[in-house]
Amino acid sequence: MTAIADIEAAAQRGKGIVRRTPLLSSPFLDEIAGRRVFLKAEVLQHTGSFKFRGGWSALSAMEPELRTRGVLAFSSGNHAQGVALAARMHGVPAVILMPGDAPALKIDNTRALGAEVVFYDRAGGESREEIGAALRDERGLTLVKPFDEPMVIAGQGTCGLEIAEQAAEAGVSAATVLTCCGGGGLTAGIATALADRAPGMVVRPVEPEGFDDVARSLASGEIVANTGPEVGLCDAIITRAPGHMTFPIMATHCGPGIVVTDAEAKSAMRHAANCLKLVVEPGGAVALAAALYHGAVLADGPVIATLSGGNVDAALYAQILAEA
Amino acid sequence: MTAIADIEAAAQRGKGIVRRTPLLSSPFLDEIAGRRVFLKAEVLQHTGSFKFRGGWSALSAMEPELRTRGVLAFSSGNHAQGVALAARMHGVPAVILMPGDAPALKIDNTRALGAEVVFYDRAGGESREEIGAALRDERGLTLVKPFDEPMVIAGQGTCGLEIAEQAAEAGVSAATVLTCCGGGGLTAGIATALADRAPGMVVRPVEPEGFDDVARSLASGEIVANTGPEVGLCDAIITRAPGHMTFPIMATHCGPGIVVTDAEAKSAMRHAANCLKLVVEPGGAVALAAALYHGAVLADGPVIATLSGGNVDAALYAQILAEA
Repeated sequence: MTAIADIEAAAQRGKGIVRRTPLLSSPFLDEIAGRRVFLKAEVLQHTGSFKFRGGWSALSAMEPELRTRGVLAFSSGNHAQGVALAARMHGVPAVILMPGDAPALKIDNTRALGAEVVFYDRAGGESREEIGAALRDERGLTLVKPFDEPMVIAGQGTCGLEIAEQAAEAGVSAATVLTCCGGGGLTAGIATALADRAPGMVVRPVEPEGFDDVARSLASGEIVANTGPEVGLCDAIITRAPGHMTFPIMATHCGPGIVVTDAEAKSAMRHAANCLKLVVEPGGAVALAAALYHGAVLADGPVIATLSGGNVDAALYAQILAEA
Repeated sequence: MTAIADIEAAAQRGKGIVRRTPLLSSPFLDEIAGRRVFLKAEVLQHTGSFKFRGGWSALSAMEPELRTRGVLAFSSGNHAQGVALAARMHGVPAVILMPGDAPALKIDNTRALGAEVVFYDRAGGESREEIGAALRDERGLTLVKPFDEPMVIAGQGTCGLEIAEQAAEAGVSAATVLTCCGGGGLTAGIATALADRAPGMVVRPVEPEGFDDVARSLASGEIVANTGPEVGLCDAIITRAPGHMTFPIMATHCGPGIVVTDAEAKSAMRHAANCLKLVVEPGGAVALAAALYHGAVLADGPVIATLSGGNVDAALYAQILAEA
C-alpha cells in the first residue's frame, strides 16, 4: 500500500519539475455554495491535468535500463499526455494505446508530446490488454498503469501534500476534500497524504451519474463494477471499477462517494470559466459540481475541490459555455 | 514619477492579499512562437485581472478618514472590479461609473462585489468626468483613476516584481516583456520594476489595431490620441491616449509598441484555452498574440507576455472558441 514516505519521495523526485498548482477561490463560488470553497487548480499542471504527477513519479522511479527501452500506457487522454511528457523529458520512447473515439485534443496533444499513439476499437470489443501485451513483449516496453500502480498513486499524492500546505496557509485545518474520481489514483494519493498531514480533512470521491463504481464499492465494502456503457461526457473519469490497490486505500480513508449529473458538471464548467478563468473538462468539474450543488450531504465548513483536468475539445467546450 | 520604492511599498501593503500569480508556459506555445514563451497569468488575480493590484494599492495607501467616505472610479469593467473588491475588503463604499455598453459580466461582477454602478451613455456623448465630479462633490468620494495615478501604477508594478523573481527562478534574465496596454498603468509599473530588478529585460507595449495611441506616442515622442471609435473587441485596453504620468515612464523604459489585429487576439485566446487552460479576454490576449504572430519584430530570446484579464462574456467567448 502506498505510504506517506512514498509520496514524500515522489515529491522529492518532482521538485522543480512538477508544478505546484495554486489553491484558488472566488467570492461568487462561496456565495453559490453557501460556504468557503477552495479549488486545487490541477488544470494548470503540465499537460493540463494532475496526471503528469503520476507519470513523472512512475518514470523517475524506474530502473534506468528498463526506462530506456520505453514505456507503454493505456489512456483516453490525460494519463497519455502525462506519461508522454514524462517520457520525453527522460528522452525515452512512449507508446500510448488510446480508444479511437478519445477527444481529438487529447490525441493531438499526446502525439505532439512525441508519443506514438496506437488506437484500439473500444466499441468493436478489441482488447487493449491483449494489444498492449503484444506491444510490450515485442518492444520490451514497461507498462505504466493509469491508477493501480504504487508509484503513480504516490505521484498523485503530491497533490495532497500541496493541499495540506496551502490550506494551512489559508488558515483551514478541517475541510471536506472533494476529488474527481475515476479509478481512484488521485483520490487514494490525496487521502493518504492528508491522513498524515491534515487529519482534520475528509476526502470524498465524486463521480458522474451512471459511472459511480467507487461510490457503490465504498457503500458495499467491496469492489463493484459499472455494467452500463463505457463512454460518457466525463471521459477522463469513466472507469469500470476502482483498482485493487486504490480501493483499500479509499475504503480506509474516504467518506462516502458523491454522484453528480452531467448537467451539474457542465454548470460547474461554466462557473469555473466565469469565476476562476479556468478551462475545466467535464470530468475535471465534477468535484466543483458537488461543492456547488450537493452541499446538503456535506459536513459543515469549508470545501476543497480538485479541478483535475482541462483537456476538452474546443467545439464541445464552446457548446457547453453557450448553453448558459 | 512612480519609483521602485513605491512599488516595494505597494507589495508590502498587498502581502497575503494580492495573489502572486503563476508564470506559466506550454511546449505547444513555444513551438508556435519558435522561442520560449512565458505567460504571467493575471487572469488568476482576484477579480480576474491585474487591476486588483492597483485598486488595492490605491485604497490601502489612502488616508483612512478619506477612504471611509468612499471611492469613485470610471471603468469599462476591470478597474471597476478591482476597486470594488478593494473597497469591500476595506469596508468602504464604492461608486463605479460604467458605460452602458460595458460587457455584462463586468457589470454583474462589479455589482456582486458590492459597488454601486452608475451608467453613462458613451455614444450619446455624456461626460463621465462631469457626472463623476458631481457624484464626488455630493458624497465626498475620492476618485481612483484607472492608470494616471501614482499609487495605481505602483500597485500594477508589483506584477513586475513577481515577473523578475519568477523569470530568475526559470533561469531567464534577458527577455522581451510584452504587456497588454491601454492607458499604460500596467506597462509603466512593470517597466519601472524591471528597470530596477531585471535590467536585461525590455518592455514592449501591445495594443489592438485602431487603438495604438501608445505605439504612436512612443514613436513620435509625445502623447498622441486615437481619433477613431471608442469601442472595439478589446474593450479593456481601449483608451484615448496614454496618461501624463504613464507616458514619460514608458518613453524612458519601453521599446517600440506592437500592434495586433482582433483576429490575432482571438486566435491567442483559443491557444490560451487549449494550451494553458486559461480563459483570457480579448484585451488580455494581445500580448500573447504578439508573442505568437509578431516574432519577426522581437529581439531573439525568450518572451514573457502578460495575460492581463479574463473577464469575457460567455456568449462572446463561446463564439470565439467555436471560430477555430
